[in-house]
Amino acid sequence: MTFAHEAHADAADLLAELTLEEKAALCLGSGMWHTTAVPRLGIASIMVSDGPHGLRRKPDQGDQAGISGSLPATCFPTASALGSSWDPQLVFRIGQAIGEEARAQGVAVVLGPGINIKRSPLCGRNFEYFSEDPFLSGVLGAAVVAGIQSQGVGATVKHFAANNQETDRLRVSAEVDERTLREIYLPAFERVVTQAGPWAVMCAYNKINGVWASQNEWLLDQILRQEWGYSGLVMSDWGAVRDRVAALAAGLDLEMPPNFGVSDVAIVTAVRAGTLDESVVDQAVLRVLQLVDKARITVSTPDRVNVDAHHALARAAAAECAVLLKNEAGILPLRPKAGELVAVIGEFARTPRYQGAGSSQVNPTTLDIPLDELRKAAPASVEIGFAAGFGVDADVNDGELAAEAVVLASRARTVVVFLGLPPAEESEGFDRRHIELPANQTALIPRLAAVNPNLVVVLSNGSAIQLSDWEHHARAVLECWLSGQAAGGAVADLLFGTANPSGRLAETLPLRLQDSPSYLNFPGESGHVRYGEGVFVGYRGFDALDREVSYPFGHGLSYTTFHYTDLSATVSGQAEDGDLALTVTCTVTNTGERAGAEVVQLYVGDPQAQVARPVRELKAFTKVGLAPGEAIGVTFDLDARDLSYWSTASHRWVCEGGVFEIAIGASSRDLRLITAVDVSTPPLAIRLDGMATLHEWLADPAGAAAIKEVLGADEDGRPRGILADEELIKVIGGFPLDSLAAFPGTGIDHAVIADLTQRIQPRQSR
Amino acid sequence: MTFAHEAHADAADLLAELTLEEKAALCLGSGMWHTTAVPRLGIASIMVSDGPHGLRRKPDQGDQAGISGSLPATCFPTASALGSSWDPQLVFRIGQAIGEEARAQGVAVVLGPGINIKRSPLCGRNFEYFSEDPFLSGVLGAAVVAGIQSQGVGATVKHFAANNQETDRLRVSAEVDERTLREIYLPAFERVVTQAGPWAVMCAYNKINGVWASQNEWLLDQILRQEWGYSGLVMSDWGAVRDRVAALAAGLDLEMPPNFGVSDVAIVTAVRAGTLDESVVDQAVLRVLQLVDKARITVSTPDRVNVDAHHALARAAAAECAVLLKNEAGILPLRPKAGELVAVIGEFARTPRYQGAGSSQVNPTTLDIPLDELRKAAPASVEIGFAAGFGVDADVNDGELAAEAVVLASRARTVVVFLGLPPAEESEGFDRRHIELPANQTALIPRLAAVNPNLVVVLSNGSAIQLSDWEHHARAVLECWLSGQAAGGAVADLLFGTANPSGRLAETLPLRLQDSPSYLNFPGESGHVRYGEGVFVGYRGFDALDREVSYPFGHGLSYTTFHYTDLSATVSGQAEDGDLALTVTCTVTNTGERAGAEVVQLYVGDPQAQVARPVRELKAFTKVGLAPGEAIGVTFDLDARDLSYWSTASHRWVCEGGVFEIAIGASSRDLRLITAVDVSTPPLAIRLDGMATLHEWLADPAGAAAIKEVLGADEDGRPRGILADEELIKVIGGFPLDSLAAFPGTGIDHAVIADLTQRIQPRQSR
Repeated sequence: MTFAHEAHADAADLLAELTLEEKAALCLGSGMWHTTAVPRLGIASIMVSDGPHGLRRKPDQGDQAGISGSLPATCFPTASALGSSWDPQLVFRIGQAIGEEARAQGVAVVLGPGINIKRSPLCGRNFEYFSEDPFLSGVLGAAVVAGIQSQGVGATVKHFAANNQETDRLRVSAEVDERTLREIYLPAFERVVTQAGPWAVMCAYNKINGVWASQNEWLLDQILRQEWGYSGLVMSDWGAVRDRVAALAAGLDLEMPPNFGVSDVAIVTAVRAGTLDESVVDQAVLRVLQLVDKARITVSTPDRVNVDAHHALARAAAAECAVLLKNEAGILPLRPKAGELVAVIGEFARTPRYQGAGSSQVNPTTLDIPLDELRKAAPASVEIGFAAGFGVDADVNDGELAAEAVVLASRARTVVVFLGLPPAEESEGFDRRHIELPANQTALIPRLAAVNPNLVVVLSNGSAIQLSDWEHHARAVLECWLSGQAAGGAVADLLFGTANPSGRLAETLPLRLQDSPSYLNFPGESGHVRYGEGVFVGYRGFDALDREVSYPFGHGLSYTTFHYTDLSATVSGQAEDGDLALTVTCTVTNTGERAGAEVVQLYVGDPQAQVARPVRELKAFTKVGLAPGEAIGVTFDLDARDLSYWSTASHRWVCEGGVFEIAIGASSRDLRLITAVDVSTPPLAIRLDGMATLHEWLADPAGAAAIKEVLGADEDGRPRGILADEELIKVIGGFPLDSLAAFPGTGIDHAVIADLTQRIQPRQSR
Repeated sequence: MTFAHEAHADAADLLAELTLEEKAALCLGSGMWHTTAVPRLGIASIMVSDGPHGLRRKPDQGDQAGISGSLPATCFPTASALGSSWDPQLVFRIGQAIGEEARAQGVAVVLGPGINIKRSPLCGRNFEYFSEDPFLSGVLGAAVVAGIQSQGVGATVKHFAANNQETDRLRVSAEVDERTLREIYLPAFERVVTQAGPWAVMCAYNKINGVWASQNEWLLDQILRQEWGYSGLVMSDWGAVRDRVAALAAGLDLEMPPNFGVSDVAIVTAVRAGTLDESVVDQAVLRVLQLVDKARITVSTPDRVNVDAHHALARAAAAECAVLLKNEAGILPLRPKAGELVAVIGEFARTPRYQGAGSSQVNPTTLDIPLDELRKAAPASVEIGFAAGFGVDADVNDGELAAEAVVLASRARTVVVFLGLPPAEESEGFDRRHIELPANQTALIPRLAAVNPNLVVVLSNGSAIQLSDWEHHARAVLECWLSGQAAGGAVADLLFGTANPSGRLAETLPLRLQDSPSYLNFPGESGHVRYGEGVFVGYRGFDALDREVSYPFGHGLSYTTFHYTDLSATVSGQAEDGDLALTVTCTVTNTGERAGAEVVQLYVGDPQAQVARPVRELKAFTKVGLAPGEAIGVTFDLDARDLSYWSTASHRWVCEGGVFEIAIGASSRDLRLITAVDVSTPPLAIRLDGMATLHEWLADPAGAAAIKEVLGADEDGRPRGILADEELIKVIGGFPLDSLAAFPGTGIDHAVIADLTQRIQPRQSR
């Protein structure tokens, strides 16, 4: 996919007709969900609506801030689930469907997807984000944008950037170094912007290193527009603008919702006072007009939506998103014999949790009840019993509910327990304080296991939970995330084997919260959050710390098995010529007896870099569906950027020469094929001058030769000065020559440094 | 101890006589180890020498940078060992002895102690520092300063500040937030400066948040002089000055060694050009003259040193510093029977490692050999056999040495193995890359244990090592650190029970390096090191992460046992009145059959603070010697500062009201007595204005009342606006009112905010 805006001559003409007041008004919305119209010039108002996993279009009379009461729409799996699909084609189709529904409801721009990185499992809004990995987030984000926009409806990628928590989200400053931003928090946005061309980018609420995202020229102009070439519109998150004039100057085109009487007045006043160039206003207005123009035809030709087809898509999607974490002795899929009892336990089987709270909350067109779907899917000769086991609104144990469940379990052949996080624990607006399931759920598990070892756990939760304290009681665990209105049907498909699980974890499931690399620095305090773990987010951190996890990033089982063979990795071209290409191929075979899909994951490691790099990073993946016995050749193409780190010293991506580890895995910790490739690029040249250390001079052949020559040797050929004192070199070899110049007896003085620098000069200007 | 400078009228008079060039020269040394003399005015040159744990005075003809060849001096235990003594009286006596030796050798100022915090076990210079804890470091640092200065010789506390690594130490910028500086990296300096009045403070090499320590006005002037009231001299670390004029302006009085032809010229030029006020130069010169003046009488009346007495002190000190980590079945002290063989194994028994390399390296007056001392101490009827077992200069296994050791061990009743870090692994100038013992040592241990279970390990190392991979083979482990020239005698005293171990760990011994809180951020890269763990350094981090360790901070066994009883904690006064006092008492009883010393440790926790605080922090301790059966009452007095954290929001120490946990422990994880005290201070007032969130307004009784009143209620008494929508409040209750003002239907607009702010105004100005 590539992206290009057409020139809009009309918009430019319109600009000349607008008064300054009208322009200022166009830089603000006209209400909660609409842009500003200028009827005298035929400029229409367009509608935007929440909707990363389904539309939340408020009725026209309801232009209010409230969450509920939106028009019905298909509730697709949330991003927590879609991230686990590792399937951009699927995510594209969901984008298409959301785009269709938007168009049918007169919505021009959908306010999604959210692609922020899951920095901590505690983030209350993690269910709206795809992954802890920027590459996976970027690929899926680009797919959903492309899908929505294929219907002539705009997508809005959000929240740009470093909005990784809900705590104090409107005021907190994310203190994060540039390398970490470039490698972790920005690449997903970069991919979506450059590959899918979203109509809009939404800025984040927070500050980044002290500067509001809404007023951050480095982010909104230098990186987004100049480096990535973005030409679409930048809008505020709802209420993110603190200083409308500063935001305009930084590149924020549209403020939502409008801060009437403040922002519009400030713009007009600043232009009149000469403190804001009117051309800046014009540029923003032009982008608003271009957005309105893009939306005009689409919105004026509403489509009809096949609600049933969308529900079927939601069901297929939910099945593809579920992650089979464990499956001892092949207990799944269920194969109940005639007359057997399957005990379904857990209030969530009757009252499913399928989406999260906040601005992404959809009013679903219908809702599958897991218990009903299981009864429909089971053979008629099989009894499906039910006991609630626990309530979802409290975590105190209900002795009666639990006892009833234990009795049911004791009578059954197999027990399927639906566990999950209560809705009150996960929401936009606040972060979790822990990652445990409620005590009334975890207390039930050992009691069930005590009466029936054939225990299957089905999970509904929007972000990582702790499994280590109870999962040993279960033979199988199926993580369904928050998977939309058809999740109930999908779980029936999965449990009875109509569908074969193919989801893979998009986030690490830690043994305990304290093991998370961000633990000591989440959610910060006093208006600051230090990103103290740097680039070591998620599996990058768990691997760097060599820390055990419950289930690693990329993990997920299938009802069939896959075998990996024939790894080949070949390098051509040169990084410094811009044509470095790395081609990796392998063969994957379905060695089991069912059709199934495998996610083939390619990880790159750079063990010799001059900076601390993650042990391995996901750089490519593909999901392949294979019939039993079928084999497929997989090819991955990588370039220099895939091997590079962001150098803060030279302010660019650096592909350091040397050996890289290339691993093909079924997860980040289940590496099936490993090889090494040697990438020869010239060594990083360290500038040799007075602030270079003695060690640095001596490590450079030309530098060492110059020092030896200048310091000279005595009659017996022994070196003079500091070169004669190896004991001292160990202690002060890390000193810059400028410091050594003050040390008597080293032979280094300022004249010597000048001499040395001159001798090395020709090399440096090379 | 309090500290006051006398006025030096002479110095002020001299100042008027000096030319600008002479003043500039006085702001620099005259060579590697001397200040500048001005003979025409009778201004003498004084000598400074390295010497945190013993003097490294270079001979007069050797004014060179080299490490070796200093005059003989007593090598006392290094700070790694002294830190483990937890005994300020002992450390004071060692300071006294160093002061005597300095005076005897004509040294006016000793360049020590180093009191930097052990941020990572990898820091190559950790052996020169006391602890990972700022309180313990400060108490011991103040004691050694007081001891040195009791002899009329100056002490120099170093390296100020945040010099916690050797890697790139002359260029790296320590990126560390103010709360972490205030709570972890500065308090030891604050204690030493305010309680012991060191003649000199030495700045660090590194930058702090981008500003060189040598040119850091915030550090050298605002904090050191204005806040702490320091009136002594500030000198550079050797070669730390980058811009002499900027350093002078920031408060650096003396540059060492002199950067002739650059720094002196720059000062004169800057004053002449009017870019540096001459009064700044005068102030620095005055401090140099005052230092010279203080030293004059002392240095002119050299003392004689009783070398044997100092060696005896060194031996007693080394015995007090050793930490008995484990002692299964009371295998120690050794009680060999007549005719039994004790096998002493390990090259370190014959070639002891007792100090570290670099500027602190002492040329000892004599050196105890552990093997010789053990033979002297053992009953004549007991045979002490020896086998080297391994070489110390390589980590490859020497099969012959190992085999010989195994044969010897198999014949013995008990095996004492001397293990440690080779000298090449620990030094000023570079950091370690791992914390393991060499493989030829760890490989030997299981082989010895296989032939003889009565295995005792004696360790010599300057910083934490990993024990978890081998210590299960040993019945006892005695950590001796690098304990000076008499360490050999001390170990004989300890092993045979002439001395009873009383050292306690001043640093955590982790299970593995990766568990260290600073692991992901040490030693940084590209000229920056992020202090990503914040205040969670050492045990503060291990406790916050609930991470298992090999041995916790404060741990150490004795040949006797102690029992704790009768905890009482009483609070009086008020923090806001400045008279809050917390008195904690308990009783400690020696319940064993030997005399011994216990370190009673007081830890404070503040579980309810608005900021993330360590689980517990050391705030007081005392070392008590008790005869068998003897009991002693211990009293600790704490004040508000001991309960406070540094608030970055209000730029001051804040003692938050609420419940504090007071624990008395034999280590940080062996808490014997715990209680809680309630400190009532007024709650922290949050300023209620447009940038305060709805939650903050509603959490404040007056704020909540104002909002309810202004928004009003409908006819049925139901609240209006956002107060009617609990679902919405959960999602956007964290918004500042200024943001909510743009949201339709909330009832909040700018007029309402103005009204609210006015209503709350009287409270705020209270």
